[in-house]
Amino acid sequence: MTSTMGVAIIGGGLFVKGSHLPAVLECELFSLKAIYSRSLKSAQETANLIPDSVPQPDLYSEDSGAGKSYQDILQRDDISAVIIALPILSQPSFIEAALSAGKHVLAEKPIAKDVSAARALIANAQRICSSTKATLAIAENIRFFPSFAYAASEAAKLGKVHNFSVRVLWRIEPDNKWYNTTWRQKPDYQGGFLLDAGVHWAAATRLLLTGDENKPETVQAFTAQMCEHLPPIDTVNAIIKTQSGATGVFQNSAGSLLQAFEWSFSYEKGTIKIAGETVTVQPAGGEEHVKEFTRTNGVSEEVAAWAQSIVDGKVNPLQTPEQALADLEFVEKMFTSGDENGSTQKYELL
Amino acid sequence: MTSTMGVAIIGGGLFVKGSHLPAVLECELFSLKAIYSRSLKSAQETANLIPDSVPQPDLYSEDSGAGKSYQDILQRDDISAVIIALPILSQPSFIEAALSAGKHVLAEKPIAKDVSAARALIANAQRICSSTKATLAIAENIRFFPSFAYAASEAAKLGKVHNFSVRVLWRIEPDNKWYNTTWRQKPDYQGGFLLDAGVHWAAATRLLLTGDENKPETVQAFTAQMCEHLPPIDTVNAIIKTQSGATGVFQNSAGSLLQAFEWSFSYEKGTIKIAGETVTVQPAGGEEHVKEFTRTNGVSEEVAAWAQSIVDGKVNPLQTPEQALADLEFVEKMFTSGDENGSTQKYELL
Repeated sequence: MTSTMGVAIIGGGLFVKGSHLPAVLECELFSLKAIYSRSLKSAQETANLIPDSVPQPDLYSEDSGAGKSYQDILQRDDISAVIIALPILSQPSFIEAALSAGKHVLAEKPIAKDVSAARALIANAQRICSSTKATLAIAENIRFFPSFAYAASEAAKLGKVHNFSVRVLWRIEPDNKWYNTTWRQKPDYQGGFLLDAGVHWAAATRLLLTGDENKPETVQAFTAQMCEHLPPIDTVNAIIKTQSGATGVFQNSAGSLLQAFEWSFSYEKGTIKIAGETVTVQPAGGEEHVKEFTRTNGVSEEVAAWAQSIVDGKVNPLQTPEQALADLEFVEKMFTSGDENGSTQKYELL
Repeated sequence: MTSTMGVAIIGGGLFVKGSHLPAVLECELFSLKAIYSRSLKSAQETANLIPDSVPQPDLYSEDSGAGKSYQDILQRDDISAVIIALPILSQPSFIEAALSAGKHVLAEKPIAKDVSAARALIANAQRICSSTKATLAIAENIRFFPSFAYAASEAAKLGKVHNFSVRVLWRIEPDNKWYNTTWRQKPDYQGGFLLDAGVHWAAATRLLLTGDENKPETVQAFTAQMCEHLPPIDTVNAIIKTQSGATGVFQNSAGSLLQAFEWSFSYEKGTIKIAGETVTVQPAGGEEHVKEFTRTNGVSEEVAAWAQSIVDGKVNPLQTPEQALADLEFVEKMFTSGDENGSTQKYELL
C-alpha cells in the first residue's frame, strides 16, 4: 500500500538518462515502475543509473519478447502515468496509445513535427480523453527554469513591449552528443535543430511577451543552411511585430561560431535582460537588479508540477498542449516564411 | 607665404564645435580662414573655442550684412576647401554652390535626405566638378574609428559571412543635447534619428560585410514609433540576406530603454565582435584576441585623410559620394520596407 502514483518512462535517450530519470526519482508523488526503450540494451543502460537503494523498475523494449512490449506497460493497473520522450516523429502514436489506455501523459516537446500534425494530435487526444479521463501534458522545461520564470513574472509588470531581441547562437559540431542520433543527423521534419531546440527559445520568448497587446502577430524570416552537416536549415533570422505594433528580432543558429543565449526586452516601464544564468531587471529611470541563477534545466520542477497536476485533476497551464502548439507555430511560421523568401506570416494560435 | 590650404567651416552646430573645429586646428595641411553660420552669434560661439595663439578666422553669417555671406567665402582665393555641416535638408545647395566656386568639399553625412536627392546631387556634382576641378567628399567618421577600421581589416581575412547581428539601441530623451534643434525634433525627412545616426551604423555594418559575396542583397524591415517625441519612427528591425545567401539582423532604436552598441559577425573562418570600444576577433578553433580602443570619434583622422586627398588630387575611397550613397540606401530600403509592412527590398547600389 503506497500513496505514490506508478509511472513509466518511455524512451532511453540522453535527456531521459540525464534529466527525466533523476526528476522522477526525486518526485515524492511518483514511483518508477517501468522503463521502455526500443532496445533492451538502452532500457538497461537507463536502469543502471538507478541507485540500488531504490526499487528497480521493470524493463520493456521492442526486442524483449512477449509481455514486454509498450502495450504491456499500458495494460498495467499499477501504472497511471507515462513520460514519453522519443524521436519527434514517433511521439504521436505513443501518446495516443497511452491516452487510450487511460494513462496520463507528459510528452516531450515539440508537440509534433508541425502545426498540422499537432492539431490532429490534440483533436485525437481530446476525443480519447473525453472517454478515458486521461490527460495530456506537453513538457517544456524552459518554462520551469527559475531564471525564465522570474523574468516572466517581472515582464508582466512592465506594460507594453517597445522592442526586443532574442539571440540564441551556437554551433552544433559533428561530435556533439546531441548530434549523434540518426533522427537528428538526417531529420525527416522541418527545421532540424531549429525545431527541436527552437521551440524552447520560442517558449522563452513568449514568456516575455505576456499580455494580449504584446502577443506576436506577424513574422517574416530569412533561413539558411551554412553548415553542410546541419540539414535542412541551421540559421533563422526573423522580425516580429506584436499586436500593439512593437517590433523585435529573433535570431537562432545552430551553425554559428558566435555564442549567445540572450533575451533583451524593452517595455514601457523598464527592461529585462537574460544572458546565460543572469537576469537583469531595470525599471525606467531606476536601478538595475541583477539576479544570478544556478544552472538547472527545470526538469525536476517540471515533473513535480506535472505530478501535482495529476493529483489536482487539471493540466498545469504551463503544460497544456495549446501552449506547446503555440511554441511550435512560433518557429514553424518562421520556417515557412524562410522557405518563401521572407513572406509575411500571421500568427493564429498565440 | 604658407604651404597650408585655406579652409572654411560652414555650420556652427554641436558637432562642428566639438569635432570639426579641433580636427581642422590639428591638421597641419589646413589653416582655418573662415567660419560661417546662420547667425553671427553662432559663428562667434564657435570662434570663441579657438585658442588665442592661433590666427583667428573671419566670421560670416546670414545676419552679418554685405561682404559677409556664404557666397563671399566662396569668392575668396585664399580658401580652397570647405567643410559643410548643416541640417540635412540644407546641405545640397551649399555643396553645389561651393563646388561651382571651385572649392573642394567635405560634406557631412547623410549625403542627402534620400537616395533620389543623393543621386541628383552626385550627378550635379559630377557635372560641376568636370569644369571646376573641385572634388566632393562625404564625411563618415565611423569609417575612421580605429576600432572599426581594425575590425574591417580583420573581417577581410575571414571569408564568407555565415550570420550576423547588429544592435544599436538607446533612448533619445527630450533633454538630449542632439535633440534640441528644431530640424531634429520635427524632421522633414525620412527616419528621423534613424537616418541621421543610422547611416553611421550602416557604414559600420558594410565595413564588416566586405567582399562581393558578403554584400547585402535583400532586406525586409518592420519600423515603429514607440516614443511620441521621436517622429516619424524611432525603431527599425531588419533582416538582411547577402549575395551568398547568408542572413543577419540589423536593429536600431533611438526609443529603447535598452543600451547596446554591438556588431557580432560569424564568418567561415572565425568571428568578430565589436561592443563599445572593445573588438574581439576569434579564428575558428583558435583563441580570442581582445583589443580595447580609446574612445575617439574619428573626425581628426577623417579631416586629415581628406586634406591629404586634396593634396593627392584624388578622393579617398572611404569618402566617396558613392560610399555615402550606399550607406543611405542601406537604411532607406529598411524605411521603405517598414512603410510597406515588411516588403522585400533589393539593394542596387551596395
